[in-house]
Amino acid sequence: MPIVTIQVTREGTRPGNESVTAEEKARLIHGVSHLLLDVLNKPLESTFVVIEEVNTENWGWGGLPVEAYRRQRAAKAP
Amino acid sequence: MPIVTIQVTREGTRPGNESVTAEEKARLIHGVSHLLLDVLNKPLESTFVVIEEVNTENWGWGGLPVEAYRRQRAAKAP
Amino acid sequence: MPIVTIQVTREGTRPGNESVTAEEKARLIHGVSHLLLDVLNKPLESTFVVIEEVNTENWGWGGLPVEAYRRQRAAKAP
Amino acid sequence: MPIVTIQVTREGTRPGNESVTAEEKARLIHGVSHLLLDVLNKPLESTFVVIEEVNTENWGWGGLPVEAYRRQRAAKAP
Amino acid sequence: MPIVTIQVTREGTRPGNESVTAEEKARLIHGVSHLLLDVLNKPLESTFVVIEEVNTENWGWGGLPVEAYRRQRAAKAP
Amino acid sequence: MPIVTIQVTREGTRPGNESVTAEEKARLIHGVSHLLLDVLNKPLESTFVVIEEVNTENWGWGGLPVEAYRRQRAAKAP
Repeated sequence: MPIVTIQVTREGTRPGNESVTAEEKARLIHGVSHLLLDVLNKPLESTFVVIEEVNTENWGWGGLPVEAYRRQRAAKAP
Repeated sequence: MPIVTIQVTREGTRPGNESVTAEEKARLIHGVSHLLLDVLNKPLESTFVVIEEVNTENWGWGGLPVEAYRRQRAAKAP
Repeated sequence: MPIVTIQVTREGTRPGNESVTAEEKARLIHGVSHLLLDVLNKPLESTFVVIEEVNTENWGWGGLPVEAYRRQRAAKAP
Repeated sequence: MPIVTIQVTREGTRPGNESVTAEEKARLIHGVSHLLLDVLNKPLESTFVVIEEVNTENWGWGGLPVEAYRRQRAAKAP
Repeated sequence: MPIVTIQVTREGTRPGNESVTAEEKARLIHGVSHLLLDVLNKPLESTFVVIEEVNTENWGWGGLPVEAYRRQRAAKAP
Repeated sequence: MPIVTIQVTREGTRPGNESVTAEEKARLIHGVSHLLLDVLNKPLESTFVVIEEVNTENWGWGGLPVEAYRRQRAAKAP
């Protein structure tokens, strides 16, 4: 009966995408469900997966909203 | 001080509804708060309830997005 | 496919009990699963319930650990 | 590697605002990240913060949706 | 910055084990972190994974504590 | 009615401590509750805080259990 919760920022991974696509979500669900089958022998039908997309202004890292933190890191990179 | 989190798919339970209705949410909040009062003697004013609605493409079951899994199960049913 | 998470402090509800009993947990699981069946027509076998017990020193209310807050409220009561 | 999740109702804190503002979110992220640095010596870059905004009809308190509960409390106040 | 939470019952997957082993946990962490790299292009160092083990009496399925539900299902199997 | 969940590894922050101390937990509860009062004007008595301590073998970072990841980073540091 595993429950897997995947929290990611709501943004695209490729140019032109503004969010995680349905196909990417399906791959995440497939992959993590099979991982639990392989490692812990959990039947596929007993695993629930919930994907939570979080707006970037609601995600903090490094003491800043994540987009500000990314800009700060990019500016510091050698 | 109980906290109850109820996660459900964002879809209607009756024809014509596209999501859980405000009246259904109020019944869930009422029911679970009184359950905690009855079973654990928790005062109503000390219980918080949070209902999270999850888009069906973000919910996985059986290694698939839930709508694909339902179709698969329906096709297999005798 | 609802998921219900119930967070409560790890303490007994009656004299002599130091935590929620197995019988009380079974009543919570039964009650909330039937609530989702009654209100949203969710089959019992599609509902997961997770009960999380939290040590009182890990639970805050009113800006204080919960036991300190209860003492403060009791002292203020008329 | 702390993870801090802040759940609040989706509503403004000042007249004219309908939700938590980006500036308020940034202050929450800054404040809680520095709190973990001060109290537990966690580096800022190892703390994630997620702010979840919940519609008021999805939040229960006192056995009621929170807006109904507030009205009830206001009506009872001396 | 993904956060993945994996909730499973606290029990062994093989005879002689009473819980998930450290090696199984490491495989779960490795697998899901690489899944997020493959599907969403998230760098390994930006993914947090939290594994929560839940006592079986705290996990409900089918309206019952999970061990009672498993016995019920086994008794019904043809 | 904010709910704040703080997840940290179960380990001491100073030599001789094996976990977060009660005094450190009280400071976290105090700090975050006052932050919500200051930023969002939430009364102290309407904020719940839950601190979850996670064993280091249950926490993953960089595709590894966190202690292995820390060793890897220390070995790479110039």
